[in-house]
Amino acid sequence: MDLYEAIVRRRDTRHFTSEKVPAAVLQKALEAALAAPSVGLSQPWRFLDISSTDRQLLLASFSLKREAAEDSIDDKERLALHKNLKLEAISEAPTLLAFFCAYPSESEYTIGIIGQRRALEWSCACAMQNLWLALTAEGFGAGWVTILDLPGLARSLGAPSSWEPMGLLCLGRPATDYEGRPMLEVQSWRQRKTDIGSFYADIQDPAYLQRLEK
Amino acid sequence: MDLYEAIVRRRDTRHFTSEKVPAAVLQKALEAALAAPSVGLSQPWRFLDISSTDRQLLLASFSLKREAAEDSIDDKERLALHKNLKLEAISEAPTLLAFFCAYPSESEYTIGIIGQRRALEWSCACAMQNLWLALTAEGFGAGWVTILDLPGLARSLGAPSSWEPMGLLCLGRPATDYEGRPMLEVQSWRQRKTDIGSFYADIQDPAYLQRLEK
Repeated sequence: MDLYEAIVRRRDTRHFTSEKVPAAVLQKALEAALAAPSVGLSQPWRFLDISSTDRQLLLASFSLKREAAEDSIDDKERLALHKNLKLEAISEAPTLLAFFCAYPSESEYTIGIIGQRRALEWSCACAMQNLWLALTAEGFGAGWVTILDLPGLARSLGAPSSWEPMGLLCLGRPATDYEGRPMLEVQSWRQRKTDIGSFYADIQDPAYLQRLEK
Repeated sequence: MDLYEAIVRRRDTRHFTSEKVPAAVLQKALEAALAAPSVGLSQPWRFLDISSTDRQLLLASFSLKREAAEDSIDDKERLALHKNLKLEAISEAPTLLAFFCAYPSESEYTIGIIGQRRALEWSCACAMQNLWLALTAEGFGAGWVTILDLPGLARSLGAPSSWEPMGLLCLGRPATDYEGRPMLEVQSWRQRKTDIGSFYADIQDPAYLQRLEK
């Protein structure tokens, strides 16, 4: 698939068919992830396939966090809208991956992290984007879930304390493409801005910050 | 360009020709960035084109951080190798972008950040990966530089305190493709692992953590 087609068609998917993700597709997606840039060639990404885990426990963790989030929404209409949003696919996604950033020990020198150690997490997110694009090209999709007790998830999997949990990936064959738009937009939660000028400015423009600050 | 070709050909580039990045190419790359996933449709990415900035000041910031990093390398051979690595392209890259994550105010509700607010930065990194792949498809390239006083850079640009600086992007036409491998590998700094089993394991495998923990 053409790069731009994959970029435009990629969706954060919460609705999947029951079709399994073929091993060859998962392998291709993981190979794409491994080709991502990583700060100092650290390759800090780690994927645990937790498809066999107790999904009810995960759902309970999700629900607790979701309810806590909803407690902070004062507007009644927004709250009602929020309660109708499907924000995970934990019980039905054929494949579930837990996704981590493995921080190197303090004594291990890594190029590029002296300015910001979180560059390691940014590398992992780049890998995630590659994986997501590859799934899209293969006719599959993913939904990234972070509404979870992430440290609790990491502990339950016995992950080393140096691994930063970055969420859960629900993988499968999308049951819908949400009319080719983000689900949150289709469901009138939030409208995407598509004008580059909202996100990019040249400092030669004296008003560069005013344009972007909102 | 085919998605997988773009993924495999994308390089962290430190060597550029003097050819300018056409406005149409930059626009295409920014459009690709805007099509990235973002937590709660937050679209937190911000790009400042700082090509016109005083590059000597940026280089000084880089050099200070680099020297501080090198102070922590005890092994003399590694240190000599490190000193020979080109880790930026600040003076010669035709286009320089400063890249930020704009955190929403605490009172502004954003879906998905209750588990981890840094999911906003992860969204920005996904956008960066899209931008990078698009540049690759157009025959251009980028190098992500984080060896900098990032808070100082943000202050010097007058960026709001809610913007987390994520580094500098050096953009241009690559002068080399480093034999199709990461420059750090070509220069014998570090060898990439390409076996999926080093990064992915199924928890049904009783040894899943031992396989990955190294």
